[in-house]
Amino acid sequence: MRAMRLVEIGKPLKLEDIPIPKPKGSQVLIKIEAAGVCHSDVHMRQGRFGNLRIVEDLGVKLPVTLGHEIAGRIEEVGDEVVGYSKGDLVAVNPWEGEGNCYYCRIGEEHLCDSPRWLGINYDGAYAEYVLVPHYKYLYKLRRLSAVEAAPLTCSGVTTYRAVRKASLDPSKTLVVIGAGGGLGTMAIQIAKAVSGATIIGVDVREEALEAAKRAGADYVINASSQDPVSEIRRITQGKGADAVIDLNNSEKTLSIYPYVLAKQGKYVMVGLFGADLKYHAPLITLNEVQFIGSLVGNQSDFLGIMSLAEAGKVKPMVTKTMKLEEANEAIDNLENFKAVGRQVLVP
Amino acid sequence: MRAMRLVEIGKPLKLEDIPIPKPKGSQVLIKIEAAGVCHSDVHMRQGRFGNLRIVEDLGVKLPVTLGHEIAGRIEEVGDEVVGYSKGDLVAVNPWEGEGNCYYCRIGEEHLCDSPRWLGINYDGAYAEYVLVPHYKYLYKLRRLSAVEAAPLTCSGVTTYRAVRKASLDPSKTLVVIGAGGGLGTMAIQIAKAVSGATIIGVDVREEALEAAKRAGADYVINASSQDPVSEIRRITQGKGADAVIDLNNSEKTLSIYPYVLAKQGKYVMVGLFGADLKYHAPLITLNEVQFIGSLVGNQSDFLGIMSLAEAGKVKPMVTKTMKLEEANEAIDNLENFKAVGRQVLVP
Amino acid sequence: MRAMRLVEIGKPLKLEDIPIPKPKGSQVLIKIEAAGVCHSDVHMRQGRFGNLRIVEDLGVKLPVTLGHEIAGRIEEVGDEVVGYSKGDLVAVNPWEGEGNCYYCRIGEEHLCDSPRWLGINYDGAYAEYVLVPHYKYLYKLRRLSAVEAAPLTCSGVTTYRAVRKASLDPSKTLVVIGAGGGLGTMAIQIAKAVSGATIIGVDVREEALEAAKRAGADYVINASSQDPVSEIRRITQGKGADAVIDLNNSEKTLSIYPYVLAKQGKYVMVGLFGADLKYHAPLITLNEVQFIGSLVGNQSDFLGIMSLAEAGKVKPMVTKTMKLEEANEAIDNLENFKAVGRQVLVP
Amino acid sequence: MRAMRLVEIGKPLKLEDIPIPKPKGSQVLIKIEAAGVCHSDVHMRQGRFGNLRIVEDLGVKLPVTLGHEIAGRIEEVGDEVVGYSKGDLVAVNPWEGEGNCYYCRIGEEHLCDSPRWLGINYDGAYAEYVLVPHYKYLYKLRRLSAVEAAPLTCSGVTTYRAVRKASLDPSKTLVVIGAGGGLGTMAIQIAKAVSGATIIGVDVREEALEAAKRAGADYVINASSQDPVSEIRRITQGKGADAVIDLNNSEKTLSIYPYVLAKQGKYVMVGLFGADLKYHAPLITLNEVQFIGSLVGNQSDFLGIMSLAEAGKVKPMVTKTMKLEEANEAIDNLENFKAVGRQVLVP
Repeated sequence: MRAMRLVEIGKPLKLEDIPIPKPKGSQVLIKIEAAGVCHSDVHMRQGRFGNLRIVEDLGVKLPVTLGHEIAGRIEEVGDEVVGYSKGDLVAVNPWEGEGNCYYCRIGEEHLCDSPRWLGINYDGAYAEYVLVPHYKYLYKLRRLSAVEAAPLTCSGVTTYRAVRKASLDPSKTLVVIGAGGGLGTMAIQIAKAVSGATIIGVDVREEALEAAKRAGADYVINASSQDPVSEIRRITQGKGADAVIDLNNSEKTLSIYPYVLAKQGKYVMVGLFGADLKYHAPLITLNEVQFIGSLVGNQSDFLGIMSLAEAGKVKPMVTKTMKLEEANEAIDNLENFKAVGRQVLVP
Repeated sequence: MRAMRLVEIGKPLKLEDIPIPKPKGSQVLIKIEAAGVCHSDVHMRQGRFGNLRIVEDLGVKLPVTLGHEIAGRIEEVGDEVVGYSKGDLVAVNPWEGEGNCYYCRIGEEHLCDSPRWLGINYDGAYAEYVLVPHYKYLYKLRRLSAVEAAPLTCSGVTTYRAVRKASLDPSKTLVVIGAGGGLGTMAIQIAKAVSGATIIGVDVREEALEAAKRAGADYVINASSQDPVSEIRRITQGKGADAVIDLNNSEKTLSIYPYVLAKQGKYVMVGLFGADLKYHAPLITLNEVQFIGSLVGNQSDFLGIMSLAEAGKVKPMVTKTMKLEEANEAIDNLENFKAVGRQVLVP
Repeated sequence: MRAMRLVEIGKPLKLEDIPIPKPKGSQVLIKIEAAGVCHSDVHMRQGRFGNLRIVEDLGVKLPVTLGHEIAGRIEEVGDEVVGYSKGDLVAVNPWEGEGNCYYCRIGEEHLCDSPRWLGINYDGAYAEYVLVPHYKYLYKLRRLSAVEAAPLTCSGVTTYRAVRKASLDPSKTLVVIGAGGGLGTMAIQIAKAVSGATIIGVDVREEALEAAKRAGADYVINASSQDPVSEIRRITQGKGADAVIDLNNSEKTLSIYPYVLAKQGKYVMVGLFGADLKYHAPLITLNEVQFIGSLVGNQSDFLGIMSLAEAGKVKPMVTKTMKLEEANEAIDNLENFKAVGRQVLVP
Repeated sequence: MRAMRLVEIGKPLKLEDIPIPKPKGSQVLIKIEAAGVCHSDVHMRQGRFGNLRIVEDLGVKLPVTLGHEIAGRIEEVGDEVVGYSKGDLVAVNPWEGEGNCYYCRIGEEHLCDSPRWLGINYDGAYAEYVLVPHYKYLYKLRRLSAVEAAPLTCSGVTTYRAVRKASLDPSKTLVVIGAGGGLGTMAIQIAKAVSGATIIGVDVREEALEAAKRAGADYVINASSQDPVSEIRRITQGKGADAVIDLNNSEKTLSIYPYVLAKQGKYVMVGLFGADLKYHAPLITLNEVQFIGSLVGNQSDFLGIMSLAEAGKVKPMVTKTMKLEEANEAIDNLENFKAVGRQVLVP
């Protein structure tokens, strides 16, 4: 089958012809109908997340087929699979572990010591077929299409978990940084659907702020023309933000937004732009603020976001379909900030 | 001033002329603009909640002015009051404690060992003025009117806390029993605003089911013509309900709805109809279900519901205004199930 | 191999000769060194837990080899097993699920819709060997012997989870009912090790109370000669118990101990004596008490109790070893309340 | 009465003669029997916590009587005080708020927007008497002496809350930095009493490590002669620490100990040495670690630590009594790291 694979760090993905895997036991073979292209694929192709090198530090082995936002139809099931059969349209949770380590046992499988992340450690969805190690990672789609569902398995799960870690309630205010992008609008929609909190979207372009408003932001701030710190203090009547979801974690955002936190405010760190966090420690202690890393999500988060989206309580991201062979072009678009809407590869 | 007071158990409230209190220290005197009439006032006038007698068992001292759903304008403040002044329109949290007991110290003031509940233990709002012991129980209204706000301080707080105790998320299903009444529609609205869960409303009249749908129920069941147990199993694809909020706890509801619980389901008990809970203990253990009492709410719950309502994320209950002197008639209506919408007394 | 199996409801277990299973994939074959005999084996042999029949209501299929408290040495591993090898001494979590259902996905695998409980649904440890479906259910023993470890996998896990559900802290008081038995002394030890709470042990014989004291109870009450309700109120200075762990849930205990609860008290229901819970609903609501079912435990609970015991922070139960063929005698002893210490079968 | 007061930043406290306050309403006048000298008094006298100036940035008004670790006998009560009377021996929670702000209402009074911290914002215990604004801040001593109890109200509360924020359980490992000092040994004792976790104490002198061991540390590391990062990885079998409590937050500790965190590890920041936190943001996200500020404690924490200590489950700090007039000498000792044991002033 055709597959777009990362063969060498820093080089374009290479179209290769590899065998179609054969599912056995609890495994399931999926015929890909949609594979979302994620910003982390830019990092994968570059070979690093900030200072961390994907091969030496994170243990990725090349070559590997990228593509971790996966939806498609079941082509074949192993002999121990129950409740799923050929033809079922499913989304796939790619954040899989090996099962035995501490994190798998406590239900935080996405942090497995021996991760089996599809599209990162294991062959993913930039291909005609993908092999899923166990049917427990599937979610049957009833209302969503494959193209709508695929981006939920990473960008949806990621923002769902981040919102959960923000510990919101109706008396609290959330600031979303990067509010108008795909993840930002998803975070806003989710926060609106599950928390009752006041939501402030921050971005730097007017059309992004429009998108944030449509997604449900109660307030928007244009950080290129307004002072976000004083605006957020004004909106919150001086209290500050109870939570920030930083989808960038760039040098710039980390130099500004910790200062908008209210006492006991939570700074949820999702973005992987590669900067350092620098903040005066007494401010952390005296205000009891928290900096909280949040990475994709576990099986509960996957169920949560899929349930929300299937029920129509959040809308899928705007998508643009491209051909499998255009994977590098799609990643280029993300690298050069030229992507509009989530790019989804259809083999 | 005029006040409608409970002077004798089992007798109508009596119109009395009592002195207007004078606030000192942290106290605030409120000129009542709205006093909601709550179903618990039926029990107060009868003198019992189920087997519990309000005087002998619950420590209520007569005479007392009823009325615990309170909104109005500040008339006068004590000399230690900060941040509030004459003319401010406010809602009042009536579930006040003395401050020193274990429950007050851990933030569960509504369960104070020496409660100072306005309209129950202390003089309430069926009067021209009410004295509030501390300004920390006030919430300034910006968008809501007094008539809209008053019922939130009991029925709003109560359902807010019940929803919080139901521990919902988007993968879960909530059943609200008594879905079409004032509390039921409020519970549905709140659950919809803060959880992303699937909501099933159960009631016995078609117009009640219509109200539940308008409030946001995803499904409704008419318990007088449908079998709620099989319907709920069907809607949840056999799993059962992850949470039930029982606003009645009548002999009938307690004999049926524990059986709709999913494993780990939570049965949140709000209603005070006075029946007994009877359930086979092995079913509780083997299914890890929970029965959870929920009573009005604490200061956090009060902030939560007021924030939600002020932000327009839940709509106030439908109300009908009546005169202070009509308090007994309003309570009669509740006792005889003839009230339509929340009755609010305006002095 | 020899195995003591439940072949017919109400009849003694039968010694049978069955094939030794062959592990494949992630499976592991354990040579049994210790199999604890649990009170639930009395219910299994009787064929019912209270009103619930194990075949018709709980889906057990006969014949089945009993024995769910398992420790032994690895005899052989499947070809996908990592990190375990022949000769390793391990304890086994028997509360296994199939992986795909809602409860498995959210980390509550012991409530799986298609449970694979060893010794209940699947062949267990009253045999020379047991087949474990995945190596993730193993815990390597470093300091504990097999005989010490086996009872932890049920009685240890069960009480660990019950203590966790009691939500204790140093300002709270826990009452353990059945304090002097194997589960009672384990619950007391765990509560002492992880909570800092005040612990009151209740039992009916003096030697049981001595055992409870040795386990760490701060107070003990002899329910056959003292009034436990007034004693508990006295010890807690009138407040009542913040939590009760009821290891019986008999008609008697359920008629007394709900009345010792403080406001917001939690009644954790572990025992499977088969009685009904009956309690006045307004007391549940007005005092915000909770009745909470607790069943064995999940993988986190298994890690928790094994860590505690391996670190020497709780001591294993007193045990008495018997031969595999004496399984029925051991169960008889439990049924007739003649067992002293945990009986452990050694093949 | 005599009082040692901060009159001018950077100058020694000054002995002044000021009037004895008169309690009214809910207030209580305490005759001081013990006033602990805390390291934060060094910062108070210096006028800054790191970059934050106590007057300009934190709103302290001079002159003020220092001393926030308070125990003594009730001398006189206001006319609304219930349950306390002259002669009662009490400890005082000094972290008091005004009641109306968001933080007070949600039970986090120590973060009040208008704090009334005794010994910081309000006159404290370096005097013959102190006025407590409400009797709800008192805790009656039954077994502890005033000298034993006083340090619990700051150093005890602070470490209790820090341990709580570390979210420990028996499968987790805690590292305490500064393990042999007064706060360190208290943190170790508390963690041992309430969590069942494995505890590693880190310090730089052998006698400090001895103290940490006596307090209950399972392991100790001498950071001046061993590499703490590799030692902690070794002890935890490569996993790292699930929680760190940093009682310094110095440039040195913040440059080393974030690297010992396991995935999902929590770095609880208590110390106020004044350094900056600098850490690579992708490490925070990819490992889902958290940096968590923790400041003194709320009323629940106060109840928690007082209950533990009164029950004898943690032992009071070693103390050395000095005269009120020696307050500056005591602060000098702390500033020059010459204090051995907690210094307690007795007027």
